[in-house]
Amino acid sequence: MLKGISSLISPELLKILMEMGHSDEIVLADGNFPGASHAQRLIRADGHGIPELLDAILKLFPLDQYVDKPVALMQVMPGDTVETPIWSAYGEIIEARTGLQAPFEEVERFAFYERAKKAYAIVATGEGALYANVILKKGVISE
Amino acid sequence: MLKGISSLISPELLKILMEMGHSDEIVLADGNFPGASHAQRLIRADGHGIPELLDAILKLFPLDQYVDKPVALMQVMPGDTVETPIWSAYGEIIEARTGLQAPFEEVERFAFYERAKKAYAIVATGEGALYANVILKKGVISE
Amino acid sequence: MLKGISSLISPELLKILMEMGHSDEIVLADGNFPGASHAQRLIRADGHGIPELLDAILKLFPLDQYVDKPVALMQVMPGDTVETPIWSAYGEIIEARTGLQAPFEEVERFAFYERAKKAYAIVATGEGALYANVILKKGVISE
Amino acid sequence: MLKGISSLISPELLKILMEMGHSDEIVLADGNFPGASHAQRLIRADGHGIPELLDAILKLFPLDQYVDKPVALMQVMPGDTVETPIWSAYGEIIEARTGLQAPFEEVERFAFYERAKKAYAIVATGEGALYANVILKKGVISE
Amino acid sequence: MLKGISSLISPELLKILMEMGHSDEIVLADGNFPGASHAQRLIRADGHGIPELLDAILKLFPLDQYVDKPVALMQVMPGDTVETPIWSAYGEIIEARTGLQAPFEEVERFAFYERAKKAYAIVATGEGALYANVILKKGVISE
Amino acid sequence: MLKGISSLISPELLKILMEMGHSDEIVLADGNFPGASHAQRLIRADGHGIPELLDAILKLFPLDQYVDKPVALMQVMPGDTVETPIWSAYGEIIEARTGLQAPFEEVERFAFYERAKKAYAIVATGEGALYANVILKKGVISE
Amino acid sequence: MLKGISSLISPELLKILMEMGHSDEIVLADGNFPGASHAQRLIRADGHGIPELLDAILKLFPLDQYVDKPVALMQVMPGDTVETPIWSAYGEIIEARTGLQAPFEEVERFAFYERAKKAYAIVATGEGALYANVILKKGVISE
Amino acid sequence: MLKGISSLISPELLKILMEMGHSDEIVLADGNFPGASHAQRLIRADGHGIPELLDAILKLFPLDQYVDKPVALMQVMPGDTVETPIWSAYGEIIEARTGLQAPFEEVERFAFYERAKKAYAIVATGEGALYANVILKKGVISE
Amino acid sequence: MLKGISSLISPELLKILMEMGHSDEIVLADGNFPGASHAQRLIRADGHGIPELLDAILKLFPLDQYVDKPVALMQVMPGDTVETPIWSAYGEIIEARTGLQAPFEEVERFAFYERAKKAYAIVATGEGALYANVILKKGVISE
Amino acid sequence: MLKGISSLISPELLKILMEMGHSDEIVLADGNFPGASHAQRLIRADGHGIPELLDAILKLFPLDQYVDKPVALMQVMPGDTVETPIWSAYGEIIEARTGLQAPFEEVERFAFYERAKKAYAIVATGEGALYANVILKKGVISE
Repeated sequence: MLKGISSLISPELLKILMEMGHSDEIVLADGNFPGASHAQRLIRADGHGIPELLDAILKLFPLDQYVDKPVALMQVMPGDTVETPIWSAYGEIIEARTGLQAPFEEVERFAFYERAKKAYAIVATGEGALYANVILKKGVISE
Repeated sequence: MLKGISSLISPELLKILMEMGHSDEIVLADGNFPGASHAQRLIRADGHGIPELLDAILKLFPLDQYVDKPVALMQVMPGDTVETPIWSAYGEIIEARTGLQAPFEEVERFAFYERAKKAYAIVATGEGALYANVILKKGVISE
Repeated sequence: MLKGISSLISPELLKILMEMGHSDEIVLADGNFPGASHAQRLIRADGHGIPELLDAILKLFPLDQYVDKPVALMQVMPGDTVETPIWSAYGEIIEARTGLQAPFEEVERFAFYERAKKAYAIVATGEGALYANVILKKGVISE
Repeated sequence: MLKGISSLISPELLKILMEMGHSDEIVLADGNFPGASHAQRLIRADGHGIPELLDAILKLFPLDQYVDKPVALMQVMPGDTVETPIWSAYGEIIEARTGLQAPFEEVERFAFYERAKKAYAIVATGEGALYANVILKKGVISE
Repeated sequence: MLKGISSLISPELLKILMEMGHSDEIVLADGNFPGASHAQRLIRADGHGIPELLDAILKLFPLDQYVDKPVALMQVMPGDTVETPIWSAYGEIIEARTGLQAPFEEVERFAFYERAKKAYAIVATGEGALYANVILKKGVISE
Repeated sequence: MLKGISSLISPELLKILMEMGHSDEIVLADGNFPGASHAQRLIRADGHGIPELLDAILKLFPLDQYVDKPVALMQVMPGDTVETPIWSAYGEIIEARTGLQAPFEEVERFAFYERAKKAYAIVATGEGALYANVILKKGVISE
Repeated sequence: MLKGISSLISPELLKILMEMGHSDEIVLADGNFPGASHAQRLIRADGHGIPELLDAILKLFPLDQYVDKPVALMQVMPGDTVETPIWSAYGEIIEARTGLQAPFEEVERFAFYERAKKAYAIVATGEGALYANVILKKGVISE
Repeated sequence: MLKGISSLISPELLKILMEMGHSDEIVLADGNFPGASHAQRLIRADGHGIPELLDAILKLFPLDQYVDKPVALMQVMPGDTVETPIWSAYGEIIEARTGLQAPFEEVERFAFYERAKKAYAIVATGEGALYANVILKKGVISE
Repeated sequence: MLKGISSLISPELLKILMEMGHSDEIVLADGNFPGASHAQRLIRADGHGIPELLDAILKLFPLDQYVDKPVALMQVMPGDTVETPIWSAYGEIIEARTGLQAPFEEVERFAFYERAKKAYAIVATGEGALYANVILKKGVISE
Repeated sequence: MLKGISSLISPELLKILMEMGHSDEIVLADGNFPGASHAQRLIRADGHGIPELLDAILKLFPLDQYVDKPVALMQVMPGDTVETPIWSAYGEIIEARTGLQAPFEEVERFAFYERAKKAYAIVATGEGALYANVILKKGVISE
C-alpha cells in the first residue's frame, strides 16, 4: 500500500501505468473479454468493476490531449438492442476527472480485439456489464 | 470466469488452491502484511476484504480434519487494547461452511511471520481491519 | 483437489479454462494428434478419453452463444469410410450440458490443424477413437 | 504415444523414469498428498489411480535389488482403525512384476513427508484410497 | 535406463519421440549437418551412427500410414557421382520394422534444409556417411 | 510518469515501495555502498542524492509506528573524526514528513551490511556524502 | 562508480554504450515518450534531464563520421507553434564535444517512433522540455 | 584450458565452432562492428586481433569445399581510397591452413550487415584495422 | 564436429572440459548411476562406454599433478565378490595417456555419491560394466 | 568500444567493475584457476595476461583505502621452490597507479579458494605464470 494510491491498484498495475508514455493504450476489460489471449501484458483485477478502476486510474494520468477521442468503446453489434448504461457512468467519471465531454470513439468488435492486441496492457476485471470494455490513451504529463 | 467459481478468485489463486494438499497452509494477509518479503508464492488480491475471500475459498476446500485448530490468527500484542471484531466475522463464515465452532489458534506476531514463510502461498488482500491476518490449513477431500 | 471440480482436471487445465474469455478456443486432441507441435499452450491429460473431459469442462463453462456452431470436428477425409460413433457421444454430452442440438461444424483436416495452432490451448488426451479431435469455443458467463 | 508404453504415462514422466538411476526414489502420491509443496520435480497424473500407474511403471524399471524393502508405505497413524486394502493390490502387482513377496517398509507420516522431499520426483495422482501413498526405489538394469 | 528402451536413446529424445503426433517429422542428421542452426528442438547423439538410431526409433513408433513416402532423403546433388550405400541399410531396417519396401522420397538439398527447419526435432548424430540425412514422418499408433 | 509521483522514482522503485509491508526495510545507499553484492532486490538511482529520494519516498509511506527508531544510520567508525552533516538534512526531512524528532538508530558498519542483506530492497544512489547510507522501516497505512 | 565516468550513467547504460558499434542508434527520450512500448532495450534514467546525459554520453563515444546528420530530432508537428530552446542546448553540447555545427536531422513524429523501435536502446529520462527526444548514431572509435 | 586448443578461444566459442555444421557461417568482427545488434549468438573476444583468431579457428575446422569463395570480406565503399593490408594477412593464413589461394568474395557494406544477421554467430574482437570484418563458411569434416 | 576432437564428445561436454580448472573433478558415470539427482551439471553420453570416453578426455587434459591419486573409483562393497576387469582397462588407458601407474583411490559407495555431488559435472554414459564409475581430477596445463 | 576504456575490457566486465562498491572483491585468475566452479559471476578474458588487465582495471577504480593490504596473492605452497616474478610486475603496476608500496597479503591456497567463492566476480584470464592469481578489494571513489 502507498499513501494516496487506491488499494484497487496492484503494484504491478501501478508500475505499468507509470511505464506507459504519451499515446500508449491500456484496455480495461470485462470479465468475459479474452484478455489472456490478446494481451501483451496482462494485469489481473478479478472481482472489481471497471468504473472504480477507471476512476482510480484517471487520478494517476491524463488522457491524450492530442487526439479528439482518447477513449474507445466496443460498438454494440448490429441488431443487438442491448442498452449500455455503463457508458454513462464512464462519461461522468471522465468528465469529473478530465473535463472532457465527448471522449468516446466506438470501435467495431473485431477491430477492438485487434487494437487490444497492440495495447501496452490489458486489465482483466470482473466487470459484469455488457459492452463494458474500454481503451484509454494516455496523455502528456507536465510536472 | 468459470461457472460456480467466485469472480473474486483469480485463475492463479484457483490453481494454487487446487495444487495444495492435506495440511498445506495458505495465508490471507491484510493490506499492511509484509507478504512480498515472506511468501513462497504470492497471489495479489488488491482491493478485496478477507471475509469475502475466506468465504469463497471455504466453498472450494475443507479445513484440516486431523488437527484441533485448523485456523491461525495473529495474537493481539501484549498491551494492545484493540478490539478484533473481524474474528467474529471469520468465526461465522467458518461455522457456516464447516460447522467448526472453535477453530482458532492464536499465534504470536513473529511466530506468525515465520509460519507464513513456510506456507504454500500468501494472498495479499486490501483488508483494512486490525489483526485480520489468518492462516488456513487445508483438509482432506473425498470425492 | 477442490470440492466440485472433477479430479480429471489438473490445476493447470483449470487455470487455463478460467483464463479463457468469450470466443477463445480449446482443442481436446486424441492420442495421435500432433499437439506439442501445434499448441500455444499444451496441457497433458494422458490416459484419459475425450468424452469424460468434455463433460467435466462443460460443467465449468458454456459454449459461445453468439455463433451457430460453437464446436468443431475434424471432417472425415474424402474416401475414408470410417464411422465416427464418438461424435454421437459428444452430441449427447453437449445437449445434456447446454441444450444445443446441432452444435457441430466440420473442418477439413489441414484447416483444423491451422485452427488448432491459433487456439488458446490444446489438451493432449489418450483418446483412441478415430476423428475424435474437437474444438470448443467458450461462451459468455453471466454471474 | 509410443509402441509398448502405457498411455497412462506422460512424456515428462517417461523422461523422469529414464533419468532416475540406481537408488533414486519416486513417490506415487494420492489425491490429497501435499505434492506441490514437497516435490523436487512434480508430475501430474490427475484422475488416475495408483495401482495402474504402479503396474505401468514396474514394466519399465526394476526395484532396488540391494535393499530388503525397496517400497515404502505411509504407516497408519496410531489410533486410526482404518483398513488399507490397496496395500494388497500393490503387493499383488509388485509380486507379479518382480517376484518380491514382502517388499514393504512402513514409514511414519511425517518421516514419509521428509523422505518425499528428497525423492527424485512425486507423481500427483487422483487416487482416492486411504494411506495409498507409496515410494519406489529404482533398481539396477542390466541390458 | 529403462527396460526395453535402447540405451542409445537419451531421456530427452525419448520424451521428444513420445510428444510427436501423427505427421510430425524428425530429422536424423549426420555429423556435418547444420543442425544447431536449423532445429526447433535439437537432440545431441554425438558419436552414434544413424542406422542404429533409426532401428531403435522404429521400435518405438510407426511411419505415417497416410502418405506414400513417409521417409525423406537428401537428393544427390546434380553432377555428384557419389554412391549412397547407407540408403540400402536404411531400406533394410525400414522394411524389417515396417514392411515398407519403397518408403523414400528424395528432396533437393536446400528444400531439405527448409523442411528440417519445420521438423519437430533434429537429432545430431556422428554419422560419417555421405548423404546420410533422413527425415521420418511419424504414423498413427493404435493401442 | 504519473500525476503526483516524483519523477525521481522509477516505475520499478514505485512497485517495490508498494509491495513492501509493515516492518519491511529499504536501504538508500550512497554511491560507494556495495549494493549489488548485498541486495535481494537492487534498484538503480544513479546520479541522485539521498535527501531528495528520502523526501519523495516519505510522501508515499509512513515509518514504522511500532518501533522507537524506525530509521538506521551507519555509525561513524571508531577513530574517524568525520562530520555527518547529511544526518541533519535527513532529520529535517523526516520531521517535516512524519513529525518524528529522534528517529535514528546507529548501527556498526558490518552489522549495517548484514541488515542491508536482509532488507527488501537497496536503492543504489549517486550520493557522495560520507556516512550517508540509511535504512527505512515501513509503517502501517490506514486508508 | 568508476573513475572518469559520470555518476549519471548506470552500469547497465555504460554496458549498452560499449556494446553499440558503428551506426547503432540510441534514443534519449523525454519523460512522456512511450519508451517501454517501443524499446528493444530500455534503460531507466528517471529524474534526469537530457542535456546532462547527452554530455556524459558524448564523452564516451563519437557520432557517426560517415553520415551528414548523425543526430535526429522529433520534428515539430505542423500547426504547433511551440519553441524548442532545448535544441540549442543540444547543439552547443554537440559542438563542444564533436565540433559538428549542423548535426540535426528532423524526423516526423510517427517516423521517429518507428526509428526508435529499431534503435539499439532507449534511455527513459525525466526530461520535461517539449520536443526533447533525440537519437544519436554512434561513430567509429580508433584507439 | 585444453591441450591443443589456443588459449585465445573461450569455452563458449569452442562450443559454437563445434555446433556449426556444413555451410554455417561465423563473422569475425572488428572493434567497431555493430555485433550486439546484429548477432544471433554473440561471442566476445575483446582485445584480440582477427588474424590470430582466424588462425586458431582454421586449425579447428575447414572452409566450405562446395563453394568457390568460402570467405567474405566487406567491400571498400565507393570513393574510399583506404588500403586493406589486413586482407593479405588473412590470405596468407588461409593459404597456410587450407591451401586456398583466392578464397575471397567481396560484399557491399549493407549486404554484409544483412548476411551477418543470418550467421550462426558473431565474434566481437578488438581488431583495429579498417575493413577487417570477415565471414567464414564452415566446410565438411571427414573424421 | 571439429578437427582433432573425438566425435564422442558433444559440444557441451567439450565446453565443460575447457571450463574446468586445476583440481576440478568430473564423474564418468555408468548407465545405472543416479546422475540426474546428483549432478551440478549433467552431460548425457547415452549409449557410450566409459573407456572410449576416458581416452578421448585424457587427450584433452592432464590429471592433477599435485595429488597422489588423481582418479577415484567406487570401492567394491564389503561381501561383494564381483570382479572389476574394467579397472584394468582404465589403468591401461591412463598409463598410455599420462604415464601414471597407480592413479587410483578407492572410495566407499556413499562417500563416492557425496563426492559426485560436488564434482563440476557428471557424464551419464551407457556403460554396462559393474563398479565402472570413475572420477577424474583435472591437472595444470602449461601451454 | 568507448573512448578512454581499454579494449581489453569487455562490456560485461566494465559493468561488473562499476557495480562493485567499497570493499567488494574481484579475482583475476590465471588460466588454470577453477574459476567456473568458484565464481558467483564469471567473466571470461581468455588469451589475456593478468598484468595488462590489472593495469586497465586500476585506471578505473582505486584500491580499498580502509585496509592495510587491499591486494591478496596465493601463497607459495610449503616446499615449493618456484619463483614468482609476476608479483614484482604487479607491485610496479600497483605502485604506479596507486602509490601503494606494500599492498600484498598472502593467502594459503585453500583459503584463497574460499575467498574467491565470496568475491563479487572472477575474471578468467589466459595468464600462464605460476602463482599469478590475485584478488583486488575496491576502494572509495569521491567524484
